[in-house]
Amino acid sequence: MEKFFNPQSIAVIGASNSPLNLAATILALLRYNNFPGDVFAVNRKGESVHGFPGYTSVLEIPCHVDLAVILLSAAHVPEIVRQCGEKGIRHIIIESAGFSEAGEEGLRLQKEMEMHLKTYGIRILGPNCLGTLNTQNRFCCFYGFVPEKYGDSFFTPGTISYIIQSGGIGVLVLDSLAFDVCKVNKMVSIGNKSDLDEADFIEYFNQDNTEVIGMYLESVRDGNKLMRIARSVKKPILAFKVGRTEEGIHAAMSHTAGMATNDIIFESACKQAGIIRLKHISELYSLPKIFTTMPLLRGKRIAVITNSGAFGGIAADILIEHGMKLAKLAPFTQQRIQKTGQLFNVKNPVDLGPAMSKQMFLDIFEILLSAEEVDGLLAIPNVWQDVVIEAILELVNMCKHYNKPAALYVPNSIQKIISIRTKYNIPIFESPEEAVRALVVSNQQYHYLIKKEKLQEEFNLYHDNEIISCERER
Amino acid sequence: MEKFFNPQSIAVIGASNSPLNLAATILALLRYNNFPGDVFAVNRKGESVHGFPGYTSVLEIPCHVDLAVILLSAAHVPEIVRQCGEKGIRHIIIESAGFSEAGEEGLRLQKEMEMHLKTYGIRILGPNCLGTLNTQNRFCCFYGFVPEKYGDSFFTPGTISYIIQSGGIGVLVLDSLAFDVCKVNKMVSIGNKSDLDEADFIEYFNQDNTEVIGMYLESVRDGNKLMRIARSVKKPILAFKVGRTEEGIHAAMSHTAGMATNDIIFESACKQAGIIRLKHISELYSLPKIFTTMPLLRGKRIAVITNSGAFGGIAADILIEHGMKLAKLAPFTQQRIQKTGQLFNVKNPVDLGPAMSKQMFLDIFEILLSAEEVDGLLAIPNVWQDVVIEAILELVNMCKHYNKPAALYVPNSIQKIISIRTKYNIPIFESPEEAVRALVVSNQQYHYLIKKEKLQEEFNLYHDNEIISCERER
Repeated sequence: MEKFFNPQSIAVIGASNSPLNLAATILALLRYNNFPGDVFAVNRKGESVHGFPGYTSVLEIPCHVDLAVILLSAAHVPEIVRQCGEKGIRHIIIESAGFSEAGEEGLRLQKEMEMHLKTYGIRILGPNCLGTLNTQNRFCCFYGFVPEKYGDSFFTPGTISYIIQSGGIGVLVLDSLAFDVCKVNKMVSIGNKSDLDEADFIEYFNQDNTEVIGMYLESVRDGNKLMRIARSVKKPILAFKVGRTEEGIHAAMSHTAGMATNDIIFESACKQAGIIRLKHISELYSLPKIFTTMPLLRGKRIAVITNSGAFGGIAADILIEHGMKLAKLAPFTQQRIQKTGQLFNVKNPVDLGPAMSKQMFLDIFEILLSAEEVDGLLAIPNVWQDVVIEAILELVNMCKHYNKPAALYVPNSIQKIISIRTKYNIPIFESPEEAVRALVVSNQQYHYLIKKEKLQEEFNLYHDNEIISCERER
Repeated sequence: MEKFFNPQSIAVIGASNSPLNLAATILALLRYNNFPGDVFAVNRKGESVHGFPGYTSVLEIPCHVDLAVILLSAAHVPEIVRQCGEKGIRHIIIESAGFSEAGEEGLRLQKEMEMHLKTYGIRILGPNCLGTLNTQNRFCCFYGFVPEKYGDSFFTPGTISYIIQSGGIGVLVLDSLAFDVCKVNKMVSIGNKSDLDEADFIEYFNQDNTEVIGMYLESVRDGNKLMRIARSVKKPILAFKVGRTEEGIHAAMSHTAGMATNDIIFESACKQAGIIRLKHISELYSLPKIFTTMPLLRGKRIAVITNSGAFGGIAADILIEHGMKLAKLAPFTQQRIQKTGQLFNVKNPVDLGPAMSKQMFLDIFEILLSAEEVDGLLAIPNVWQDVVIEAILELVNMCKHYNKPAALYVPNSIQKIISIRTKYNIPIFESPEEAVRALVVSNQQYHYLIKKEKLQEEFNLYHDNEIISCERER
């Protein structure tokens, strides 16, 4: 699997100097990122592209090739795959479209290609995909990707790894995380997944430096395999699946040829396998930061703290509607809050009014985080004074100290939210609903983790007993 | 009512030169905005503030005063109101907090003050409010508002008028609309609404240049009055009400002293009175643009057009879940689409794939908008090429021509969405869910309008018959 993200040598098949040649954009990207391995172009004329040497066939390349990337019309792909097999290439990414998603002829081509895979023991990513991205070594074989347009932020190393069944979603995620506090580790676009599928990559990301796994799915290839693997993974797995309605399923099928997946079955499979199901596509990039910056939420009792009275009520509504609870503050806690200064409301939601002292914010954060009756915070400070930013900067550390999370939203324009988030690297969500959802998924992951650890204990116990009984038999 | 938004002379009571004096910020704002009328400061020392002459009492001011703005501690307010009455001031804004929202003593003060209102026939806005804003003449008496911090965008004249029961929400709306295509006409913060309430301002905004009315409510003072007035208003009325849960109601009560309003009753009152109920606070500023830039949606059959395959399925799911329908494209329409060029999918959702021709976009927009089986568009173009922006710029005009709306979302980072929206003045929504909600409320308003027009016809008919029968009797 490593070869798909960290190849030492790579052949891009279909890359030429013709105008609008898509495969050439992959070579341009490897050049832009100063990819240190050997790179070869394969095209009809055998011409070199973007300074990388060209050949008319992979069979002519004078050294070993770790990874072949194929991007030419579907009709030629089966024969090219056969040649790759002959050359000894065992890892291929097929980015071309026109296979099972494109009707009968495409399906026939896909079957023909799959024959060669078996013959040569080749592992394939795709077809109809965008390829892979690894921010750690700046390896990326996405086609049509103009790095100058997006800047280097796409390659800033992070700890979230994505498995996506649509290149467009991949670019949306990268584009959005450029303005957020957490970044991408690896990304793989799986397309029609004729061979490797989401489960294979979950397994792989469970073993590397990934902290959170995000998935965009249009179909599930092998439900049992996905559940078996997901159950053994303790990193948070977040999944957005299209096709909650008949109409959505039909639209997705024309895109990446997935089989109709019954949504109710998928929903229950997620619950059983410990996969967090996302409600909105934006949650794929907005929610991971609750895992990378905050401890897990171990209970549902939330304290709301705001300096904008309206948001006390707004937050209370959203929390309750999402299955959370408003923590009932103990008299002792309320007394401690009262002593910090003049407040509008010492009960939960705590309303500071137009307080301007950083210390007052910090005192109340500390009182709430240390209160036994509080599992986590929903903090909604209007950042109309810089001291508020200083206070919430310290909140992140306090949360780690007390091992309780805070979800932050600031009731200012989205423009201001993004500018504060990127400037100060504070995990701020873009709406109160999003902040509450972050608490919900954090708590969900906490419960999944307990369940998974129990499962493993049982497995270990069973395994130990097996060993003991084996030894006894000896 | 006009005097609250367009006074010729104003006294700010409580404004002094003490550090952190909040009322003085109102004078600073009037100065910043070059308010052309007469302005007076009233304080204990009678000192002038920000260059405006000062008096120790309104009774000393040598000329008539249209509007008094009071911002000093609640205990003094009843006596000040009495003095205003004596002076002949008939319009007062009380921004001070500490009345009915603050327990028994506050309630007593509010009652005492209300006595004076009756005696002198004074109309009051507040207490516990932020006052009024009128972008047409740049009159604004919001306290604590630092114009230098927000820039002039807050005073860019627009056509949406807001009635808000929280100053914080007012600032959030203004802050957000600074990065959007529609702007504020007038805004009124109603606070505890001891006299004037939401219904009074709906009635007022129905007669001025307002196009859309937005409301943030924590309580409803007089449900029957609100319903009676809303029923007669044909401009779209959008309302967000806090307190959908017990917990939300309690939080709101501590904020602006509203009575608990049963949410189910409010919901059904909205439906009967033709008020569009909002689901998220952000809809208060995100959704009005569907009314100011697009025709109403007259049916539920939506055509989706995208160049990012994944969003075909994502959009289909959201549309169906929101009660919309995917338009079934007639064979003739599909043939016309097919002829425009190479597409990924000619059925609905229409997937253009990585099409780069502006004309192709325009052709398909035209085909879909002119199709009888389509009521409106959900357009989700990835703007990875400038030609796409040029195409959607023309879409806005085409929608007017065909009298059908398009809701636009572009699957790019929120940062990019905002930058395109403000640079090109295109009504782009910030998520696919928001775009679908815009279609939903547009269709809702269409149906409300039919109902309201019918009601009026019946009323007119009844009225005509009355006249006829009166004449007959003569």
